[in-house]
Amino acid sequence: MKILKLGGSVITKKDEQTPTINYENLRRIAGEIAESNQSQLVIVHGAGSYGHPYAREYRIGEKIENPQDLNRKMLGFSKIHQSVNELNSLLCEELANQGLPTIPLPPSAFITTRNKRIDKADTIIIHKYLKKGFIPVLYGDVVLDENESIQMAVLSGDQVIKFVAGKLQPERVILATDVDGIYNKNPKKYPEAMLLETISSAEQIETDKGNIVDVTGGMGGKIKELISLLDLGIESEIINANQKGLLKKALKGEKVRGTTIKRK
Amino acid sequence: MKILKLGGSVITKKDEQTPTINYENLRRIAGEIAESNQSQLVIVHGAGSYGHPYAREYRIGEKIENPQDLNRKMLGFSKIHQSVNELNSLLCEELANQGLPTIPLPPSAFITTRNKRIDKADTIIIHKYLKKGFIPVLYGDVVLDENESIQMAVLSGDQVIKFVAGKLQPERVILATDVDGIYNKNPKKYPEAMLLETISSAEQIETDKGNIVDVTGGMGGKIKELISLLDLGIESEIINANQKGLLKKALKGEKVRGTTIKRK
Repeated sequence: MKILKLGGSVITKKDEQTPTINYENLRRIAGEIAESNQSQLVIVHGAGSYGHPYAREYRIGEKIENPQDLNRKMLGFSKIHQSVNELNSLLCEELANQGLPTIPLPPSAFITTRNKRIDKADTIIIHKYLKKGFIPVLYGDVVLDENESIQMAVLSGDQVIKFVAGKLQPERVILATDVDGIYNKNPKKYPEAMLLETISSAEQIETDKGNIVDVTGGMGGKIKELISLLDLGIESEIINANQKGLLKKALKGEKVRGTTIKRK
Repeated sequence: MKILKLGGSVITKKDEQTPTINYENLRRIAGEIAESNQSQLVIVHGAGSYGHPYAREYRIGEKIENPQDLNRKMLGFSKIHQSVNELNSLLCEELANQGLPTIPLPPSAFITTRNKRIDKADTIIIHKYLKKGFIPVLYGDVVLDENESIQMAVLSGDQVIKFVAGKLQPERVILATDVDGIYNKNPKKYPEAMLLETISSAEQIETDKGNIVDVTGGMGGKIKELISLLDLGIESEIINANQKGLLKKALKGEKVRGTTIKRK
């Protein structure tokens, strides 16, 4: 069984201020997933422009100031969920067009957090759908938080990945992003930046942070979640899904350009 | 706490062969719910034309004939869920426009059946959302079934109502339908048909079936689920939500035209 994370930056136009789908990528990627012919697959996708602008606007996960602020955040919670659910529907529709039977499992319906980390979640339903051959599709969502001062939290697709991987013990986790992987320097600033083929430990990242690895663009959080998977014996890889055909190859188990997170 | 069932015949154009929303009703009803000013409300809605044409096409819940039939049904399951999810989104959007914080809880994500009756479902998440003041919105959906010969089932909104009411012990269950209630004869055939103000037991229905009560239009299943709620001490009423203002009054606890299911 494999877990595929589709970055919000790949399936949406992430920097838009309003929800904007990247249909070209969405269709191509749905096709590549179908062509890779997986027997057991879980998909988790990010929110991109369907989530981040609203999350900023409503400050979900920040301290609730007063009853008015609570009401506003609750309505924001509702709107954010509606928006990411819409993105999820667009993805599932494309996958259905490719003949793939998906079932959305919205984290807001079965996961709660405590201080923004997953606290309770019954994953039996994921097992059941997988066993029948469905593709469960989870996503970055808003969830209830047990901490009374915040009450609600934004749950990133990356945290979902880590949690689900821990429960399902996949043979591999693939992160489909809009970059080639992790570089030793920020490639946008330094043309001589080199792609790191392998990352092995949190220590390596911590040590390198100030020196060579420029952990930008939200990659920091992703890498931390992926490194913690090593303790469970689960390897992962970061690939560029904007490169046509790369995701299909990675899903089929072929070696492709990217960064693999594995023990030395 | 109250539970409101919105019939698929009220919020969709039920007899259409393709999913067709009844926007006029949807907007008015969302307004009436908001104006009734509920502090604790659970909504369950039917599928109407967003579910029934597909359910017939794919014969979900019927015996699986062979692997091809299984594949076809699985894709149908996916499509039906996408369709009812779309209806749910339209409803939640209208409720959000009225300032009501909803959270969809798709049965497919946390309920399974055995021989088409609810088998497992963790309702803690419903409690949690209710406690915070959210309006959980459940609906008629497709779900996994433990019976290996069918594997999947259509779960009616009415069965969801019964199950959820049993768990949440609401003060009242209101069924918003497109008819005035239960008649002693089919009012479409017999102009002298009279509305039954009260129904008290299954025996009454069984006895009356061949004689005076013409249980048509799917009302039979609804009434059975509602009568079984009497054993849990929960009364319910069937009202006509096509009549402007009636739902608002019923939610506010006012006596309105309709059929009440209660002990004598």
